[in-house]
Amino acid sequence: MENLTYLREKSIPEVPKQLSDLSIIRFIKEEILSNKVIASYFPHTIGQPVLKIAEGKAVENRPLNVGVFFSGGPASGGHNVIAALFDTLKSLHPESQLIGFLEGPNGIVNGKYCLITSELLAPYRNQGGFNLLGTGRMKLETQEQLEKAWITVQKLQLNGLIVIGGDDSQTNAAFLAEYFLSRQSSVSVIGVPKTIDGDLQSSFTSISFGFDTACKVYSEMIGNIAKDELSTKKYYHFIKLMGRSASHIVLECALSTHPNMVLIGEEILAEQTSFMGLIQEIADLICKRSEQGKDFGLILIPEGVIEFVPDLALLIKELNNLASLQKNEILDVLSAPSATTFKALPEMIQNQLLMDRDAHGNIPLSFIETERLLMENVKAELLKRTKEGCYKGKFSVQCHFFGYEGRSALPSYFDSHYCYALGIVSALLVKEGVTGYMSFITGLEKEVIEWQGGGVPLTALLDLEKRQGVNKPVIKKTLVDIHSKLFGQFKNDRLKWAFNDAYQFPGPIQFFGPKELVEASPHILK
Amino acid sequence: MENLTYLREKSIPEVPKQLSDLSIIRFIKEEILSNKVIASYFPHTIGQPVLKIAEGKAVENRPLNVGVFFSGGPASGGHNVIAALFDTLKSLHPESQLIGFLEGPNGIVNGKYCLITSELLAPYRNQGGFNLLGTGRMKLETQEQLEKAWITVQKLQLNGLIVIGGDDSQTNAAFLAEYFLSRQSSVSVIGVPKTIDGDLQSSFTSISFGFDTACKVYSEMIGNIAKDELSTKKYYHFIKLMGRSASHIVLECALSTHPNMVLIGEEILAEQTSFMGLIQEIADLICKRSEQGKDFGLILIPEGVIEFVPDLALLIKELNNLASLQKNEILDVLSAPSATTFKALPEMIQNQLLMDRDAHGNIPLSFIETERLLMENVKAELLKRTKEGCYKGKFSVQCHFFGYEGRSALPSYFDSHYCYALGIVSALLVKEGVTGYMSFITGLEKEVIEWQGGGVPLTALLDLEKRQGVNKPVIKKTLVDIHSKLFGQFKNDRLKWAFNDAYQFPGPIQFFGPKELVEASPHILK
Repeated sequence: MENLTYLREKSIPEVPKQLSDLSIIRFIKEEILSNKVIASYFPHTIGQPVLKIAEGKAVENRPLNVGVFFSGGPASGGHNVIAALFDTLKSLHPESQLIGFLEGPNGIVNGKYCLITSELLAPYRNQGGFNLLGTGRMKLETQEQLEKAWITVQKLQLNGLIVIGGDDSQTNAAFLAEYFLSRQSSVSVIGVPKTIDGDLQSSFTSISFGFDTACKVYSEMIGNIAKDELSTKKYYHFIKLMGRSASHIVLECALSTHPNMVLIGEEILAEQTSFMGLIQEIADLICKRSEQGKDFGLILIPEGVIEFVPDLALLIKELNNLASLQKNEILDVLSAPSATTFKALPEMIQNQLLMDRDAHGNIPLSFIETERLLMENVKAELLKRTKEGCYKGKFSVQCHFFGYEGRSALPSYFDSHYCYALGIVSALLVKEGVTGYMSFITGLEKEVIEWQGGGVPLTALLDLEKRQGVNKPVIKKTLVDIHSKLFGQFKNDRLKWAFNDAYQFPGPIQFFGPKELVEASPHILK
Repeated sequence: MENLTYLREKSIPEVPKQLSDLSIIRFIKEEILSNKVIASYFPHTIGQPVLKIAEGKAVENRPLNVGVFFSGGPASGGHNVIAALFDTLKSLHPESQLIGFLEGPNGIVNGKYCLITSELLAPYRNQGGFNLLGTGRMKLETQEQLEKAWITVQKLQLNGLIVIGGDDSQTNAAFLAEYFLSRQSSVSVIGVPKTIDGDLQSSFTSISFGFDTACKVYSEMIGNIAKDELSTKKYYHFIKLMGRSASHIVLECALSTHPNMVLIGEEILAEQTSFMGLIQEIADLICKRSEQGKDFGLILIPEGVIEFVPDLALLIKELNNLASLQKNEILDVLSAPSATTFKALPEMIQNQLLMDRDAHGNIPLSFIETERLLMENVKAELLKRTKEGCYKGKFSVQCHFFGYEGRSALPSYFDSHYCYALGIVSALLVKEGVTGYMSFITGLEKEVIEWQGGGVPLTALLDLEKRQGVNKPVIKKTLVDIHSKLFGQFKNDRLKWAFNDAYQFPGPIQFFGPKELVEASPHILK
């Protein structure tokens, strides 16, 4: 049966020219990146140079034992990192072995793993999800965990350990590399930049893998809804998109679909727009559109927006510092401004804010139905304006949240190729015998054939952040740069999108057909 | 720019062999379908024969003025009906004209229309949505409305009127045909069977257009979520799918994706499963999966399921018969069983049941968050079982509702071709000078080239139904036949799906690539 899963399984990813002949690849050392802030935490791995792939005499091949695990939420393309690791290791030396740790970091700590074979891997090539190995969110923080991981590394005589994950997981990788070196081990710990959120960036990593596929899936749905809305002219659609704090995903999806309004957390913070200010802005748009005879529209909302609205952020901070409380006690202990903010929220949201805390004792913000919070408050504002006689429209809303739909989708060509290239580079970094690096591919805005690989020291990406009162080295999330040229262009365009209904309908990801269509890379790279 | 919208615009639909040469097409009269129950309502249009296309001498060409409108919710492919009407009319006689009525039936009643030209139509070919003309839900019931439509028909000297719509809209078409004939008009009223719900079927219409695309979009999302769930093993996903009463959509999507459980309204009714019985069934599945170490899964829920659960249906019927009431008054006026049912519901759902009524004074069931209703009650049941010591799992749920995402999507090849063929046949029925017909295409399970066209008298599809105490002729919704061979096979398969996690991941609709992949027709046709 010619189904899509099968057709993608059999497809062979294109490889950058630079990586096509493994026998003539070497790494050259570029600038040394020091990082004084975190130096004392990483005495063994600090101050390493950036490594870039060049043509030259490769180091000699030997059999390598390499372990790999997924960490955190799924992102499309992960299986291709593993496929490329496998293909590269076997091609360098047929006695090399790839070992997959199960259920994320837990697998290495507790020694749960499987040997990856050609047969096992075959049905996962070019497929979405992390289901070959599973994944997990365990943080590697305690000495005991590091020690147990070390025991596994020794037992399996690993030469390399590949950590496929986002910012927290790359911090894990940095700690593992440091710990293993402190034990005089030569095992290479190499990170691979994963996350649909798009917030793991550096001078060498313009985007993490999974972002492209997730945005394309969300944009397909947003475009479909826009077309429906243009047909029925009945509803406002409030669409919340996954992506934690940063607004990269809504920005990319907005560039693909041209909605009437997009909330950008980073911009709200910069302009210190209050919650009621934001509600006014949305209500203003709806009133103006209504005057043009349009009681319908499309608004994109980033999952993390409430962390950026100053008065909501203050309220959440105060609530996080309080033990779990009953609703009737809350108002007595909040500051006056936060009490006012709390009282203005719909009851459903008040309840969600008082729900169970996450493992860190914080309010799990992903459970707050921000799209409904905004919708309810906009509705109340419009009712007020109706009574005042300055709004005569009809406001009907449909709320949507797209998240899980896009994390494990069949990877776009971009993510399939990107992950395969990252896998090759990661295998080569292990062969090179370096540790504490994150593999990267530059030139992603160009054709695959022109992409270039290398490794950046993880310590160069770390920063100190206060978590629960204690300074901790972490990889800082990259937020949307509202001063960039791209953002300037977006600000210009959105003025038209607000009223002209210039929606775009990208449609479903295509795997066959014209190259330009199939291989399109994310807008934010351009 | 080679974007998908543009590539689809330029694509020319394949035409069944039978319809490829318009000069040698004639209609042959088949059996006469009488329908005693509704005969008295349709004295002029009752007792007409089924018409089937055959090779032969075509009736002479003359310039035709034809009007067309969309009615009800969008369904993918509608623009291709119009494209085929236009192409066929112009090819039969260059002086023919196609007029589009705006915003649904309202357009013909109030004389709002536009002339369809080649240029106007071009960007809508093979595109989703009904946005070329807009749509509406006006019911044509009053003499005044029929009279006004008649005035428009006369003013524009229409030879034909094409009604693209679902069951209610085809009932409209039957009334229009009868009314126009009673005015000695020769205008041909021809219906085109549209609805994503799949509940407009007959011996000649095995499925309405739009169903295939909607199910493929929903199945793409369901497959993506299944892959995510297999990767993280964290959540149960309760996925509600649009489709009003009938469960065709969940059935088709289940055949595409193999979820762990699928609720089928028609089966619940046949087995008289009570609401708590249903909750027990879901909880049983979750407990058994938990014993196998699986605290995750995928459950599909049809939008209309609560209409089929006997005790919920009774409650809703009683509430519909009551005027709007306050919550504290409700329990005094409900029957004892319904009061018990009401009290067992979560507060959120109680509130939704007491919300604003629709235009008919009924509870708008599409606003009831059935997926959350089930989730909350399952959660309570599992808590009870935990306390009793017979469930030790962890139950985390994500609720989803897919509807608007699939109604206006880029039409699948199946829907593009199907609609184009329906459009050709509809134009030919107008040319034939018959009225009160719904166009059809048979053999949809075969290749496009083999499809066969014809027309079935609308009166043959009508039935009497009591609405607000009065008998009314309506086209009865076709429900899922739980005694069919297909359903028997499904019942067998789902036993395996419940525990084996045999999920399928259909991926996004493809428009290029192998024919078998691109042209796949719905499972329920097989």
